[in-house]
Amino acid sequence: MAEYITFDHTYLCDFTAKVFQHFGVSGDEARLAAGVLSKADLRGIDSHGIARLRTYVDMFSIGRINPRPNIRIVRDRKSLATVDGDSGLGLVVGPRANEIAMEKASTYGSGWVSVCNTNHYGIASYYSLQALERDMIGWSMTNTSRIVVPLWGAERRLGTNPIAIAFPALKNPPVVIDLSTSVVAFGKIEMAQRAGTQIPEGWIIDENGNTSRDPKDIYKGGLLPLGSTREMGGHKGYCLSAMVDMLTAVLSGANWGPFVPPFALFEETPSRSVGKGIGHFFGAMEIEGFSDVTLFKKRVDDWIEVFRETKPASGHHAVLIPGDPEHEAEKIRSKYGIPVIESVVNDLREISAKTGVHFEVKH
Amino acid sequence: MAEYITFDHTYLCDFTAKVFQHFGVSGDEARLAAGVLSKADLRGIDSHGIARLRTYVDMFSIGRINPRPNIRIVRDRKSLATVDGDSGLGLVVGPRANEIAMEKASTYGSGWVSVCNTNHYGIASYYSLQALERDMIGWSMTNTSRIVVPLWGAERRLGTNPIAIAFPALKNPPVVIDLSTSVVAFGKIEMAQRAGTQIPEGWIIDENGNTSRDPKDIYKGGLLPLGSTREMGGHKGYCLSAMVDMLTAVLSGANWGPFVPPFALFEETPSRSVGKGIGHFFGAMEIEGFSDVTLFKKRVDDWIEVFRETKPASGHHAVLIPGDPEHEAEKIRSKYGIPVIESVVNDLREISAKTGVHFEVKH
Repeated sequence: MAEYITFDHTYLCDFTAKVFQHFGVSGDEARLAAGVLSKADLRGIDSHGIARLRTYVDMFSIGRINPRPNIRIVRDRKSLATVDGDSGLGLVVGPRANEIAMEKASTYGSGWVSVCNTNHYGIASYYSLQALERDMIGWSMTNTSRIVVPLWGAERRLGTNPIAIAFPALKNPPVVIDLSTSVVAFGKIEMAQRAGTQIPEGWIIDENGNTSRDPKDIYKGGLLPLGSTREMGGHKGYCLSAMVDMLTAVLSGANWGPFVPPFALFEETPSRSVGKGIGHFFGAMEIEGFSDVTLFKKRVDDWIEVFRETKPASGHHAVLIPGDPEHEAEKIRSKYGIPVIESVVNDLREISAKTGVHFEVKH
Repeated sequence: MAEYITFDHTYLCDFTAKVFQHFGVSGDEARLAAGVLSKADLRGIDSHGIARLRTYVDMFSIGRINPRPNIRIVRDRKSLATVDGDSGLGLVVGPRANEIAMEKASTYGSGWVSVCNTNHYGIASYYSLQALERDMIGWSMTNTSRIVVPLWGAERRLGTNPIAIAFPALKNPPVVIDLSTSVVAFGKIEMAQRAGTQIPEGWIIDENGNTSRDPKDIYKGGLLPLGSTREMGGHKGYCLSAMVDMLTAVLSGANWGPFVPPFALFEETPSRSVGKGIGHFFGAMEIEGFSDVTLFKKRVDDWIEVFRETKPASGHHAVLIPGDPEHEAEKIRSKYGIPVIESVVNDLREISAKTGVHFEVKH
């Protein structure tokens, strides 16, 4: 079994900010970026939090991230804009572009921003949660490097391309939707490979495009889109992933489809460049423009309560509301700390040695 | 085998318009509505075209559709609005509300309209295709009456709640995405039941929430969301369906979740009303606000061509582009006519007898 060491959330956040500062990021932007990254740990999405710090460090080290980007609007038409992130940290470009979308929403009712020349932006729902604080409905999407095969294909062409959106309630926690458009996360295939176990039919295909239960086959094949096979709706997941690719990258002038640059040292760089960096897409809509805000939140409360009362399937306690698991994690982890797996703790020790930023495991 | 009779597209469209006029719809609105309905037949989505005319007639006959609605904006804030459809034909309320979204986009760059007090609006992609004609990216969603169970539930709580969006190319047909957020269409379960065959594991659950291969079990159980079981990502389809329910109905003040009134005489009316009619959601974004339009369309061409070149999985010829099957159908059917199954032809004969609108099968 893996061993975990628990850290206070603010300790990890401070460490992350100092590491970013070491690479030349300004204090304000380093703290902003660390806050986005650590939101993933707080909400229990371990794959997108402190565990990724090592990759950010790698990317800084090879000059792939610009620590002092000139993030700018390159096209602007009332509620719409395109932003060039100047190869800055996605964790900084993302919040700045989302801020532009929310400012536009304050002026025009809604704001929509497509972003190029950026990289990994953390968890998609971070941005939707920011919008909630202003009584807005916030949309967030990003494309990612190729791992998913289009239906009936035998080659990777799309990323796991997530979609997030959130809706506030009055008495209940908000409804927070955040999903990748692949059948499962790549991490689940990796875990099965390490454990030497087979995976369920319908998660991946081999290099000939046949479904396989051997996790190793993903390296020459790929991950299936949400829905898996045609019979189970795999064409729908492919369509959703294509939608994200269009809105984030084809629209903004970022790299799309198989040409999205990877965010890892060991992944191959695509043979062709069709744009700048990866792409994001943010939207914000003022609830006030559609409905009285309190009335809307009461309706969301009603919706949540009706769905909670659904008769559960045998073997299950209750139907969950989108965002429930993350909300629970946040309650527990903000109080008791973030459990970090030992291999990641070792990464943090190495980062400390490399950057000179103090890191200590307290017992 | 079922027998088909082929009709010219304009003949069916004229017949439909006259039937709507018989029930008191104005000539202009009847032709508009008939055009929306017949777009489904042209694009090969037979379940949403002339086959549904009988249900529209039923709904007019019991007074559930208002033939002369006062469709009005009840809330308006720059790029956003809420529209009350006054119980009009969804096939009229939908185009009018979508028109408002597109007009707002002309003024503010984007326009977003949530709609209550409406009913079945045809195929979701009709609206996205309208936006393409103005070089806009058009979004379209609707909620529908309960058939889908939320993950881990044993009761129907959501509709098949479709999402559509489309992107124009320069040389190629557009990328047209239109998907229901359920694992399959209800029609596939009905067909298996009529044929006396079993269905694949993972499409439906029985009344205890266990997956079943007996199509009859859907009547006490329900359809699973896109993704099917938890292991295969069913929570993601549930989230997407919830998103559509929020944007179309919770936002506009329509009925949501299990309280959406059915669009069929034989379906039970929900025990509670939480709003007015069903809900739609339309969005339009001017491409010009994000990118030079021609440049964007060229990038979409490039995207399409790269995806077409994907190495196909064994047993398949090629990867399809979203919208390919419907585009093919439209080419063929606009030239050679619409094949209508005999049982639907009999419905049309009955509608003709009931309304006095002339209907003739030419040989």
